[in-house]
Amino acid sequence: MNKNYSALTLEELPKRLSQISAITDRIGTNFSEWKVTEVGDGNLNLVFIVVGSKGKIVIKQALPYVRVVGDSWPLTLERAYFEYNALVRQEERDPGIVPSVFHFDREQGLIAMECLDSHKILRGKLIAGEKVKNLGDVIGKHCARLAFKGSDLFMDTKDKKHDVSLFQKNLELMSITENLVFTDPYFEAKMNNNTKGLDPIIKIIRDDVTMKTRAQLMLLKFTSNTETMCHGDLHSGSIMCTETDTKVIDPEFAFYGPMGFDLGMNIANYLMAFFSQPAHRKNLTEINSFQKWILKVIEETIQAFNDEFSNLWYNNRKGILFPKCLFEDQEQSSQFALNSVFKNIWSDAVSVCGIEMHRRCLSLAHNADFEKIEDLSYRAKLEARNLLMGRELILNSDKIKDASELTSLAIKFNERNIL
Amino acid sequence: MNKNYSALTLEELPKRLSQISAITDRIGTNFSEWKVTEVGDGNLNLVFIVVGSKGKIVIKQALPYVRVVGDSWPLTLERAYFEYNALVRQEERDPGIVPSVFHFDREQGLIAMECLDSHKILRGKLIAGEKVKNLGDVIGKHCARLAFKGSDLFMDTKDKKHDVSLFQKNLELMSITENLVFTDPYFEAKMNNNTKGLDPIIKIIRDDVTMKTRAQLMLLKFTSNTETMCHGDLHSGSIMCTETDTKVIDPEFAFYGPMGFDLGMNIANYLMAFFSQPAHRKNLTEINSFQKWILKVIEETIQAFNDEFSNLWYNNRKGILFPKCLFEDQEQSSQFALNSVFKNIWSDAVSVCGIEMHRRCLSLAHNADFEKIEDLSYRAKLEARNLLMGRELILNSDKIKDASELTSLAIKFNERNIL
Repeated sequence: MNKNYSALTLEELPKRLSQISAITDRIGTNFSEWKVTEVGDGNLNLVFIVVGSKGKIVIKQALPYVRVVGDSWPLTLERAYFEYNALVRQEERDPGIVPSVFHFDREQGLIAMECLDSHKILRGKLIAGEKVKNLGDVIGKHCARLAFKGSDLFMDTKDKKHDVSLFQKNLELMSITENLVFTDPYFEAKMNNNTKGLDPIIKIIRDDVTMKTRAQLMLLKFTSNTETMCHGDLHSGSIMCTETDTKVIDPEFAFYGPMGFDLGMNIANYLMAFFSQPAHRKNLTEINSFQKWILKVIEETIQAFNDEFSNLWYNNRKGILFPKCLFEDQEQSSQFALNSVFKNIWSDAVSVCGIEMHRRCLSLAHNADFEKIEDLSYRAKLEARNLLMGRELILNSDKIKDASELTSLAIKFNERNIL
Repeated sequence: MNKNYSALTLEELPKRLSQISAITDRIGTNFSEWKVTEVGDGNLNLVFIVVGSKGKIVIKQALPYVRVVGDSWPLTLERAYFEYNALVRQEERDPGIVPSVFHFDREQGLIAMECLDSHKILRGKLIAGEKVKNLGDVIGKHCARLAFKGSDLFMDTKDKKHDVSLFQKNLELMSITENLVFTDPYFEAKMNNNTKGLDPIIKIIRDDVTMKTRAQLMLLKFTSNTETMCHGDLHSGSIMCTETDTKVIDPEFAFYGPMGFDLGMNIANYLMAFFSQPAHRKNLTEINSFQKWILKVIEETIQAFNDEFSNLWYNNRKGILFPKCLFEDQEQSSQFALNSVFKNIWSDAVSVCGIEMHRRCLSLAHNADFEKIEDLSYRAKLEARNLLMGRELILNSDKIKDASELTSLAIKFNERNIL
C-alpha cells in the first residue's frame, strides 16, 4: 500500500479535496459548507456524495481491503487506476454511457465523477418493479461497442497489445472473479454461503462433471482469451437508471477477456431478477407482467448487441482480424465469418450467464434480488429454479440458438416446482 | 533503435567481446587468435561461431531490420530480449532442450550461447534423408511441457499474468506471424510469391470462404488466446539434431498463445518434408521408406505430447484451472476434463498445421524442402498436394480425431496427382 494513502472520512474530506480545481469548479470553493454523505453499498469501496454551493459530485475511493469482508482480505488500491482507465475507454467507445470523470488521484485510489442523483441502481428498480425505457437497447449496444472496439477487429493491434499488457496487471481483481465466480460455487469453499434447503440442488450441480468441466473451460477463456476489454462486472448493480436514461458504473474489474463476457453476466442478472419476481410483486398479474417485461429486456439486449456488432462489423472493421482483403475485396461476403464470430460470442455469453447464476446463490457475494426474500424456503425454491437453469445453460451453451430459446427456457424453469 | 547499438562484424567481434568473462571463460582470453565465421542462414539475424583456444561459442545478434528483406523492413532489436526470456523459460520447463546461454546484452541485442557444432539443422537432414532417433519423443514432450508449464494449469496465475504482460510487448514479431502466416496466403499480398503453375490451386483456396473464415478464427486465437508461452516458430529450421540428440533453437517469436500452436507448426513442417521427398530421394524404395519414417515421427510426436501432457495433468496440476478441489477431492475423475482440454489443443494444432502448410508455399518465407526442387512443374505438383491437404486440415480441424487419421490423410494426398 502506498505510504501517503489515507482513506477519506466524512470530516476530513472537504479540506482534503478543497485545493483540487477540477472539483471546486464543479461544486464551489466554499468547502466548509460542503455536505458530505457516504453512500457506498457495494462490496469494495468508499463512495461519497459531496454537495457544494455550485453543484454535486461523487468521490469514489478504493479501500486497501475488501469492504464486504474487512481488512483480513487486503486488496490493491491500484484497482482505481484500472477503473479510471476503463472509464476513459468506455467513454471513448460509447460516448455518454459512463458518468463524466473530473479528477483522478492514483496515489489515493480516488476518482471524482459526475453525480447521477436522479439515477437509481437498476437492481433496486427491478426489485421494486420499476421499468426502464430502452434499457435493452442501451446495454446491448454498449456491450457490442465495448466488445468490438476493444478487439483486433477494430484496434490497431499494437495499441491493443499494449492495452492487454496494461490490464493484465489488474490481476487481483481478476483473481476475485476466477475464484468467486468460476470455482467456489463448485466445491465447499470457505467463504461460500447458501440458502438453507438447497443441498439437493447443490449436489446435482457438484456431481455434474461434464458441467464443471465446461465451467472450467470457460474459466480458461476468462483467464486466457484477451479478445477485448470487458467491463468485467456488468450486473444490475453496475447499471444506474432513471425511467428513460441508463448509465454504466464501476468498471474496476475491467480486463481483457471474451467478447461475450459482459453480455452473459448482464443477462444472468436479469434472469435472477426474473426468477425472484414472485417474491416481490403483489399478485399474479403484476408478477406476470413484470416478468414478461424482463424477458423482453433480455431479448432486446441481445438483439441490440447483434445489430450493433453487425453494424460495426460492416462499417468499422479495420483491425487485423477478418480483413476486407480476404472477403469484400475478393467480392465475397463476410456474412459467414460474422456469423461464426457471433456464434462463439453467444456461446461464451450463455456459458458465463449460467455460471453467474450459480455463483450468486452459492458463492460469497449474493444478489439482493434473492437475499431480500425473507421467507427462506420460498427463497430456496426460487433459487433452485435459477440454479438448475444455470446448469442447463452451461451444459448447452453451444446448442442454445438464440435469445428466444433462452427466454423460453426461463419460462420453463419458472414453472418448475423443484423444492 | 538504441543509439549505442552496433552490428558486429567479423573484424570487430573479437575485440568487442574480449572483456566479457562469461565468454572468455568458455573460449579463452587470447582474442586476437579467435576464429570468427558468420553462419546465419535464417531470415532475421547475424549468427557467428567464435573459436578460441579453450572452446567454441555462438554469438547471435539481432539486426535492426529483417535480414531476408533488407533495411526497408525495420525490426526491433528487442526481439533478442524476448528470445533470451524464452530461452530461460524453455530451459526451466524442459531442462537441456535449448543451448546453454552464457551472456545476454539487451542493448546490443546479443546472446552468447553454446555452440552445437555436431548438430545440424533438422530441415537439412530431412532433405538429405537422415533419420534422427527419438525426434518425435523429444519434441512431443517438449511441446507438452511448454504448453502445460506456461499455462494456468501449472503457474501461479499472478506470475503467469506478469509474463503475459511482458510477452505482449513482443508485438513486432507477433505481427510478422499475424500477417505472413495467417493472412497473406489468402489474398494477393505484396510480398507473396509462389511456384508457377499453382494458380488453379490458389484459386480453390482463396475462393473458399468457409476455410478462410476458419483460418481467421485461428488468427483470433493466435492474437488473443494467451494460454501459454509458445516457442512461436517451431519449424524444422528451429530444431538442431545429431543422429541421437535434439535441441530447439531460435525462440525469438515467443508469445503467449494457444497450447496447440507449436505442435501444429511442427507437424506442418514434417508434412512438407513428407510431400517433398519424391524430389529428394533416388528411387521409390528410398522415398517410401523415408516418407514412412516421417509419418512415424509425426505419430510419435503426437503420442509423446499426449502422454506427457496427461502425465503433467495428473501429477503437476497446481494452477487455478481444473483444480483438484472440483474433481479428485470430490472423488470424481478429471479424465473427461483432460480429454476436453486436449480436444481443443488438438483442434488448434490441426488448424495451425494447415495454415502453416499454406503460408510456406504462398507467402513470403518458403521452405527449402520445396524451394530446393529445381524442376518447377514437379515442385508445383508436390506443393499442390501439400496445399490441398492444408485446406482439408483447416476445414476439418475439429473432426480429425487423432494422429493416425492425420497421417492417413497425408498418404491419401500424397497419392493424388492434382497438377
